[in-house]
Amino acid sequence: MSRFNFADRLLTQTKKRGNPLCLGLDPHVSLLPQFVMGKTDEKTNRVKSIEAFIISYIDLIADKVPAVKTQAAFFEQYGSAGMQMLFDVSSYAQEKGLLVILDAKRSDIGSTAKAYAEAYLSKQAPFDAITLNPYLGMDSLVPFIDACQSNGKGVFVLAKTSNPGAKDYQDLVLQEGGHLYEAIAKSLQSHSKALVGKSGWSSLGVVVGATYPEEAVKIRQLLPKAVFLVPGFGAQGASAEQALTAFEKTETAYVGGVISSSRAIMFPTSPECDCFAEWETGVKTALAAALQTLVV
Amino acid sequence: MSRFNFADRLLTQTKKRGNPLCLGLDPHVSLLPQFVMGKTDEKTNRVKSIEAFIISYIDLIADKVPAVKTQAAFFEQYGSAGMQMLFDVSSYAQEKGLLVILDAKRSDIGSTAKAYAEAYLSKQAPFDAITLNPYLGMDSLVPFIDACQSNGKGVFVLAKTSNPGAKDYQDLVLQEGGHLYEAIAKSLQSHSKALVGKSGWSSLGVVVGATYPEEAVKIRQLLPKAVFLVPGFGAQGASAEQALTAFEKTETAYVGGVISSSRAIMFPTSPECDCFAEWETGVKTALAAALQTLVV
Repeated sequence: MSRFNFADRLLTQTKKRGNPLCLGLDPHVSLLPQFVMGKTDEKTNRVKSIEAFIISYIDLIADKVPAVKTQAAFFEQYGSAGMQMLFDVSSYAQEKGLLVILDAKRSDIGSTAKAYAEAYLSKQAPFDAITLNPYLGMDSLVPFIDACQSNGKGVFVLAKTSNPGAKDYQDLVLQEGGHLYEAIAKSLQSHSKALVGKSGWSSLGVVVGATYPEEAVKIRQLLPKAVFLVPGFGAQGASAEQALTAFEKTETAYVGGVISSSRAIMFPTSPECDCFAEWETGVKTALAAALQTLVV
Repeated sequence: MSRFNFADRLLTQTKKRGNPLCLGLDPHVSLLPQFVMGKTDEKTNRVKSIEAFIISYIDLIADKVPAVKTQAAFFEQYGSAGMQMLFDVSSYAQEKGLLVILDAKRSDIGSTAKAYAEAYLSKQAPFDAITLNPYLGMDSLVPFIDACQSNGKGVFVLAKTSNPGAKDYQDLVLQEGGHLYEAIAKSLQSHSKALVGKSGWSSLGVVVGATYPEEAVKIRQLLPKAVFLVPGFGAQGASAEQALTAFEKTETAYVGGVISSSRAIMFPTSPECDCFAEWETGVKTALAAALQTLVV
């Protein structure tokens, strides 16, 4: 049964790779190197070049980390061709043994939420988990949670995000006590328990920015077994120590979620870089440096 | 300048059509009639049949209402072919003189939000406005607001949604007083003013469910000139009177936003219906009945 639970698969993979790093596969238009963007001027060709670049990146990192994260926006930007690329690179990453988290932050209700769950958490969809925005309420999350149950997938619900604006609403203090992000974490407790796998970890996870370690401690107390997706490490300035606040140290790896890093490792060279080998060396160096801070 | 402001265009169009009805273009798999779904068994063919069906629907309604709403989930469900269909039917609706609101409830930060804004609110994108989820904070909304300024587009930020789960978080009472949805409405005030057009209405709008008329009154007080997108009329049980709570009566039409209705008008017959003419008559009857309740 273990392979049908996302949290179990994540734990196995994390211990196998010895680290909880999750690398973003984000084709930022303004960061893509010259050797990818320079030779193309037509949209479809450009998408093909970008896809080839992402595939090269996956090949470089596949045996080093447990998971990757595809940011939907950077694919949707290229319309239907981009959407095809999202599915293609995600499939490829899975074939290479990586878990794939779709960072789509979807939010909708009833039959619409079901349609999203069908699109991204069906058995055949090349994603192991998806990020969700909870603002619409529990009935916007349940269709995805149901899909996790049926298809062995996972969700990461936004609790406390890594951006400065996270304080605008997430930190509002409630009359009943605590902050909004704590109320959301609390409301997930029973559902989180229902998605606990053999490993003891739950496939109902939360997003908690590395930039807010104190909040991470509070959320970990409320959801002791939820897997955390922790953005903000690297480019956004949080240290490995901050990012690992809510993780558990085991003999082989820090476990309890994934630490996500995108730009710093995928784009170690400037957009002017016209040399694949230079970029490749940059990735290896940046990845080795990041991993060094995240191993036990 | 007027044509470059979404709220101005919406007002003009609403007065021209004499009503504020916005019809959903949502290819619900389980509701599509037999004459669409029956003849196809392969995915691409099916998308072609669905697209032809939506085009027929647009032809039926284009001179009756000011706007349509495309629900992204129902297109994303069909992968890249569905994404192409979303752009194609939205373009077609615009050619027919309709304003197109993309109901995508997107939410992300910084360069990611910019990528979404580029995908859906660029000058060439076939959408006049998009729905947004505010949970991530103001820095998740600003890239879209900037695109509204530059490209004459609009946004509808979720405030109080029409679903039962809306109470889970949106209704939480804050220590500073008021509910979360009110704090969000308040925080939008200055940005809303910045997007006011010649008509006096603002292209920074909010989503306020027809099922919550008392909350609509409170939000209207906080954002007197924001255009409202009001779901929940029809299939979700709210009356026209409830839906129109925050609208202004003018000589020609109720103005101040759009009342959205999807299933009740697009799917007046059962999924077993195998007769195009029967469906066509059903749409005309349902639309006429809805319009009767929404005219001055």
